[in-house]
Amino acid sequence: MTEPARRTEAPRTAEVAHMKWWGWGVEGVGFHHEDKPAFAPFVHRAVGLDLRAAARTERPDFSRVDVPASTAPEEFVAALRGIVEPGNAVVDDLDRVVHTYGKSLRDLVRLRAGEIARCPDVVVYPADEAQVRDVVDAAVAADAVIIPFGGGSNIAGSLEPHPDEPRVVVSLDLGRLRRVLEIDTDSGLARIQAGTLGPDLEEQLNRHGWTMGHFPDSFTHSSLGGWVATRSSGMQSDKYGDIADIVKGLRVVRPGGVLVIRPVPSASTGPSVREMVVGSEGRLGVITEITVQVHRIPERRAIHAYFFKDFDHGLAAMREIAESDVSPSVTRVSDAHETGFSLATGKESKGVRKAAQAALTAYLKRRGWKLDEMCLSFIGFEGGEAHVKLQKSHIDRIVRKHQGIGVGKGPGALYDRKKFDTPYIRDFLLDRGAAGDVSETAGPWSKLRDIHAAVHAAADRAYEEIGCRGWTMSHLSHSYRSGACLYFTFAFVFGDDPLGEYDTVKRAIQQAFVDAGGTVSHHHGVGLEHAPWLAEDISAQGVAVMAGLFEAADPGGNFNPRKIVV
Amino acid sequence: MTEPARRTEAPRTAEVAHMKWWGWGVEGVGFHHEDKPAFAPFVHRAVGLDLRAAARTERPDFSRVDVPASTAPEEFVAALRGIVEPGNAVVDDLDRVVHTYGKSLRDLVRLRAGEIARCPDVVVYPADEAQVRDVVDAAVAADAVIIPFGGGSNIAGSLEPHPDEPRVVVSLDLGRLRRVLEIDTDSGLARIQAGTLGPDLEEQLNRHGWTMGHFPDSFTHSSLGGWVATRSSGMQSDKYGDIADIVKGLRVVRPGGVLVIRPVPSASTGPSVREMVVGSEGRLGVITEITVQVHRIPERRAIHAYFFKDFDHGLAAMREIAESDVSPSVTRVSDAHETGFSLATGKESKGVRKAAQAALTAYLKRRGWKLDEMCLSFIGFEGGEAHVKLQKSHIDRIVRKHQGIGVGKGPGALYDRKKFDTPYIRDFLLDRGAAGDVSETAGPWSKLRDIHAAVHAAADRAYEEIGCRGWTMSHLSHSYRSGACLYFTFAFVFGDDPLGEYDTVKRAIQQAFVDAGGTVSHHHGVGLEHAPWLAEDISAQGVAVMAGLFEAADPGGNFNPRKIVV
Repeated sequence: MTEPARRTEAPRTAEVAHMKWWGWGVEGVGFHHEDKPAFAPFVHRAVGLDLRAAARTERPDFSRVDVPASTAPEEFVAALRGIVEPGNAVVDDLDRVVHTYGKSLRDLVRLRAGEIARCPDVVVYPADEAQVRDVVDAAVAADAVIIPFGGGSNIAGSLEPHPDEPRVVVSLDLGRLRRVLEIDTDSGLARIQAGTLGPDLEEQLNRHGWTMGHFPDSFTHSSLGGWVATRSSGMQSDKYGDIADIVKGLRVVRPGGVLVIRPVPSASTGPSVREMVVGSEGRLGVITEITVQVHRIPERRAIHAYFFKDFDHGLAAMREIAESDVSPSVTRVSDAHETGFSLATGKESKGVRKAAQAALTAYLKRRGWKLDEMCLSFIGFEGGEAHVKLQKSHIDRIVRKHQGIGVGKGPGALYDRKKFDTPYIRDFLLDRGAAGDVSETAGPWSKLRDIHAAVHAAADRAYEEIGCRGWTMSHLSHSYRSGACLYFTFAFVFGDDPLGEYDTVKRAIQQAFVDAGGTVSHHHGVGLEHAPWLAEDISAQGVAVMAGLFEAADPGGNFNPRKIVV
Repeated sequence: MTEPARRTEAPRTAEVAHMKWWGWGVEGVGFHHEDKPAFAPFVHRAVGLDLRAAARTERPDFSRVDVPASTAPEEFVAALRGIVEPGNAVVDDLDRVVHTYGKSLRDLVRLRAGEIARCPDVVVYPADEAQVRDVVDAAVAADAVIIPFGGGSNIAGSLEPHPDEPRVVVSLDLGRLRRVLEIDTDSGLARIQAGTLGPDLEEQLNRHGWTMGHFPDSFTHSSLGGWVATRSSGMQSDKYGDIADIVKGLRVVRPGGVLVIRPVPSASTGPSVREMVVGSEGRLGVITEITVQVHRIPERRAIHAYFFKDFDHGLAAMREIAESDVSPSVTRVSDAHETGFSLATGKESKGVRKAAQAALTAYLKRRGWKLDEMCLSFIGFEGGEAHVKLQKSHIDRIVRKHQGIGVGKGPGALYDRKKFDTPYIRDFLLDRGAAGDVSETAGPWSKLRDIHAAVHAAADRAYEEIGCRGWTMSHLSHSYRSGACLYFTFAFVFGDDPLGEYDTVKRAIQQAFVDAGGTVSHHHGVGLEHAPWLAEDISAQGVAVMAGLFEAADPGGNFNPRKIVV
């Protein structure tokens, strides 16, 4: 029944790899535009930045960062070292800075400026749940603050200690808990340690023929525990569900014991404690192990590309697909702005491909389409060969009804290969004095057009207010029967006050979400970044109930305090 | 976009119909076996009860019930009458008894014996949410206890006041809040008042071409608010989801304000407050309005019957269906005992039907099946005509692989017509001195065989302990990718101590659930009945977190206190 995946020893701290301290991803990898001839002109048109002329900031120099000294008493560090062995409880500056922030635009700007108001005082890397329990008990006994840390990809401000936190702050890095422990092949349930990063998790599952099917943008640098703690959603959520659907069982280390939710498919056991842990961002304890729904790797998997005349036609098609009996794995349609961006990040077409593109363009013009209004869409299919074929034919019919045109698997395959590279563009822009960031929401189908229009208008007003040329683009993704996610990307060239200007735009967008009937976040979490709008989303009474939960579960405020509910 | 369903005036109290005070359903309707020739012999074999000879208890006489006097001060009742108008705040004995219990076996035995330790002191029927707010504020100001009441079908002890409750107890009957307020046709979202009973809800939706697709056994006498408060699941949950999936938005009246969860398809806004309200059984406030996912009435709907050689073959087929790309609306397979019961409750076959049955029996015998081991299965299909046809052909292939045999739509149509009648059998048995009750669980596919065997063995030991001949039967229903629900029915003839004997059997079954890896309840809720096993299911830490939530949200313990977490 079970296929245990074993490793003989726990990896040492040195084996827990972190991203660049100052940016996204691994050292030596970055975004390049030299092979994308349309990119520089596009950026110039969009935000007025001339990539050929733009001054490049120097690579951030860690020696110039003013790192606050650790306030952890020696005996406390010694106690932690007694639990996890000396090399796994560190007060080293670089390690503490790596654990100070996630990778939000605000985080990156502050890191590059060397702005670190408050660092964790000690970073601890337990080897297993027993060590997590001992660390938690020791930290709570010492009235320290515990902030769990997975891949460090958070962009909602969920990781940073409060600047005025007087207590010792422990960053509890789960990077050594990275094993798939067991697969229940009858039930498609895998028991997996919380610190397992996306690629490692899929690799361990794939080895036995399974997949979890959860691929958020952050996949390469985010962990299962982090996905659960922030209510993540992956690109194939139409088929595999959000992380809240995927998580069936949980283990959470709390003071005095482990909270255990057993993996039953559904239960009528009062308010869902499982659904309290999901999204708790460390406030209810340290998630150590998760039992997730896994699936046999599908026989067929394909992403097809389509063009729609405009965003309204694309939205209408996605809505009709969501209402139909059809079950694609991905539904995504970019608005005209994002379609322009996607086309501008393509490599130069040559030969047959160039000719085909020219023919398509000519055809669309003959049909009366305006090329600056048309929208690129990706629809994914997974399953048995017959299933995929049938789904595809149903969807092609719905697409045609909404005047869409299929353009094959080429662009989809490219999207699939490149989908995790987008965060690198943020660093590329920051190197050149420009902001690029994202905000996402979800709402009912009946409100998506209004939300889309309201956000674009709000962002435009914000750009005007700060006196810059700004760019907003978006796509619909993650469809549900009742609605979908709208995912916005915005960019502008900084003036004198980068974070102030960023706040102006970000605030305008978030306010537009809640005013137009969307949620404050579809899958990025709340942290500090989105907390100001929480009461407008789930009501003051909803926030009060949630705050009561946190206070009752953690009366000392030891677990990632002041996040979600400030 | 919207199709409002309007009524001109709120119904008066007299229009809120209740079930029989002493049993299930409406006056004048009951179970009869005279037209089912196999039923009496079956009951005799199963539990040793001779229906021809059994003495029938007299119909319970309300005048012999010793109803505790209302302790509600006159001025408090007057204040309530000021809010809801005089006829809608009542202290009448019959009304208070109707609101004392649900319809569990324990409730029915006590009602028939006239055992009422503690009654609500006043029953109030507000007309709308504004009145609910005023009632809640008045009750909390008076430090009264508020127990929300929907259809009164609860079988987990969620409704009864604690026998030692010293405060005034208000039963807040939501029966007048029974309108479908709005349908968002783009999103398939209907805003519905919490007190709407199943048939009324479907009728209002059907009128506009919509269905919610939620059909629990209690459907005819349970309310939307009750379904939400107890985490209900309907027979077609394979397609439509559990109530936790169906509920998108909520309004909950709490002291000082209304908790509002807006209907967004998915959100990353911390621990899910929506999922705290679902299953809260009145402990977080009074649910007044729910926005649910609705669907166009499907073009085709059919339930097909199959026979499997034995329960293991049936389970294996259901598991494979759950793992496949196929999406039926109902998956159900009875064990051999329940199959025997189903066949015994059929009307006498005549003519062609009788001949066909004989031919089938002969065929199965030739195939080497043992007729007392074979299992009846129902599989439901809904959707467009082509979709249903294709699903059916896929499922037929899986059934054949597991040596199952299709027997057409006849038995399925009968099941579909009769599915809400089963609770009447309990009263029929009680009239003749016998117990019949149900307990349900859910577990991963890998554990269902063990749970099934453990429960039968535990029940048999319990029957032996109390010295009676008992009968246990069960079915699998509500399939998920990772597991399913197992639903057990048990029966025995009472000896000298009906409730003591009932407890012995019920406890043995519940303990077997949690010991074998199942949950304490799949869709009946916790109440008082299942609370003793909650910590063994969701762990002591899970119960502590939940208890903390209740205490923080309701520090005065005014909302249905001591339920779920005792």
